[in-house]
Amino acid sequence: MNINGKAMRTIWVKPDGFPVEIIDQTTLPHEVTIVALKTSDDAAYAIQAMLVRGAPLIGVTAAYGVALAMREDASDAALDEAITMLAAQRPTAVNLRWALDEMRRVLAQVPVDERARAAFKHAAKLATDDVDMCRRIGVNGLDLIRDIAARKRGKPVNILTHCNAGWLACVDWGTATSPIYHAHNAGIPVHVWVDETRPRNQGASLTAFELAQHGVPHTLICDNAGGHYMQRGDVDLVIVGADRVTRSGDVANKIGTYLKALAAHDTGVPFYVALPSSTIDWAMPEGAGIPIEERSADEVLHMTGRMPNGKIQTIAITAPGTAARNPAFDVTPARLVTGLITERGVCAASHDGLLTLYPEHRAGGYAVA
Amino acid sequence: MNINGKAMRTIWVKPDGFPVEIIDQTTLPHEVTIVALKTSDDAAYAIQAMLVRGAPLIGVTAAYGVALAMREDASDAALDEAITMLAAQRPTAVNLRWALDEMRRVLAQVPVDERARAAFKHAAKLATDDVDMCRRIGVNGLDLIRDIAARKRGKPVNILTHCNAGWLACVDWGTATSPIYHAHNAGIPVHVWVDETRPRNQGASLTAFELAQHGVPHTLICDNAGGHYMQRGDVDLVIVGADRVTRSGDVANKIGTYLKALAAHDTGVPFYVALPSSTIDWAMPEGAGIPIEERSADEVLHMTGRMPNGKIQTIAITAPGTAARNPAFDVTPARLVTGLITERGVCAASHDGLLTLYPEHRAGGYAVA
Repeated sequence: MNINGKAMRTIWVKPDGFPVEIIDQTTLPHEVTIVALKTSDDAAYAIQAMLVRGAPLIGVTAAYGVALAMREDASDAALDEAITMLAAQRPTAVNLRWALDEMRRVLAQVPVDERARAAFKHAAKLATDDVDMCRRIGVNGLDLIRDIAARKRGKPVNILTHCNAGWLACVDWGTATSPIYHAHNAGIPVHVWVDETRPRNQGASLTAFELAQHGVPHTLICDNAGGHYMQRGDVDLVIVGADRVTRSGDVANKIGTYLKALAAHDTGVPFYVALPSSTIDWAMPEGAGIPIEERSADEVLHMTGRMPNGKIQTIAITAPGTAARNPAFDVTPARLVTGLITERGVCAASHDGLLTLYPEHRAGGYAVA
Repeated sequence: MNINGKAMRTIWVKPDGFPVEIIDQTTLPHEVTIVALKTSDDAAYAIQAMLVRGAPLIGVTAAYGVALAMREDASDAALDEAITMLAAQRPTAVNLRWALDEMRRVLAQVPVDERARAAFKHAAKLATDDVDMCRRIGVNGLDLIRDIAARKRGKPVNILTHCNAGWLACVDWGTATSPIYHAHNAGIPVHVWVDETRPRNQGASLTAFELAQHGVPHTLICDNAGGHYMQRGDVDLVIVGADRVTRSGDVANKIGTYLKALAAHDTGVPFYVALPSSTIDWAMPEGAGIPIEERSADEVLHMTGRMPNGKIQTIAITAPGTAARNPAFDVTPARLVTGLITERGVCAASHDGLLTLYPEHRAGGYAVA
């Protein structure tokens, strides 16, 4: 999508094939900094220090990290070493391991002297595949927005989203934001309520930023406020992303998603979850089984922002010694989810619903929970 | 309650009768600063600049502001002038006007040369009445906590609260916190989940502070997290305060209260609202009629805290030009409220429920909405 009027992706290769470049997301929304990745260590650092974040983008960055390693030494030993090193940067990221396994599978079949070229080519394919996946999610979700727009006769469609399931978490388009960008690009008037998303404020710092840069009308609200706007009829549709969806349609997503789903259900607002099929955990019968990452209390106790002099500063917002807990995700039960928007279409949040889009899992042998 | 091991109130008169002193709440939780109010202008500034906040405390501070004015000039003209000036500081605060009307009613009957003494005496009575009101709310709510404690056989009772309906909003005890302090003082093990309460962070800066100072175990969480802990069975009871309760039992309280009420209802956690009867709006049939104050977007776009060097600093947390909305309250429908805890007892959140405690309103002539 656009930054400063120019179409960008979150990761790309310079036209002459080197280096790889990324947007440093740690300085957003205050500064747009481009960082060059010249070695696999650079890629590892970008992942570990969260210059890049979001499961799809982490995976693609790791793939380019392998390519950068192959550029210097394409031996089997160097391949193993690069993959092991990159995989260790975010140990719980499923997409990271998946992308590295893909690179290993492809490169193992390629002679050493062709590996660097093949690695760059396959990393580029993973990036392109992700863009296409997100694009298709957007096309499928666009119909939902178009239907509401038709009923509203020219008034903006008000869409609430939580956290950042935007293009900054992917390579382009995003997941939850893809239907919104598609609608905006198609000339459908949309307005987005952006949840701040404490404690890391991804809504305030990333979603509001990317919507502003692409010119999509939006308003930032505290996480507390979404229910109130739903009660007042000011929300037509909720679209959020997902970190994991069980085969029964339960949705693990950023902490606070459950509260918005409850409010949507209570007020009759459609609540959709946008996800690529790689997010579906066919082995997980229901949401209660999903492990919830507990992150550092420091994220709750501190806040980072821009001082009047432009300097970025972290401040403590509580008295010293305050205890805090910081669960990163919660689980929204399928009964509160109106539908799932995937790259293959829109379905009910249920095992039967998912099987209509993914019939190949019908023979998977799992019992429905 | 206690600060640094010493029992305090939020406002008091020095032993020799002058000046009035308050805790400056704008520097909490980072510094405990005592500010002297020597004139009615000092009292007005304390209200306007939110050195004191919370409806009951604002009312008592205004009453002392009248007393300070009478100390300098006790004429009818000076009384009128002081009341008009003080009332203008927070135009929407019902309690402020009520306290000033009370002072006018009492002082109008008193000769000019006795007014100063009478004014200090009546302001002290309003303060004492508020303490007693809050104490009785605590005694009535204590039974709810005691019942849960009996079932938990020595394990702490986990109570979630939102915003600050604590003693810092009143003169002592608080409303939502009063049952908690009573339970703690009675030796019942309690643990409080403190919602941060964006955008002004009253949970993080005031509730966590006052619980810590009084030695009540507590954990700060983001507003997003309460539903998750309810799903996991980690919340036994929710107690919040109220800014206004309709005669049908709908509750206007700090923005985000509705979301917690939905989660409590969905997970079977009892959800109680603690309030003095002055909060009941017998003329208001239902919550949809309650006007919702919209506050400055700046509160959403900025955050104040302590830098590593100890200095208090305000930072911007979004890109310049970000639009934000900031509704200060939302309405929780009575159907989501398990009960109301008032100074007269606990009742159902309904017109019939309220009439059991306040039968004098039975003849009020209002139809039930």
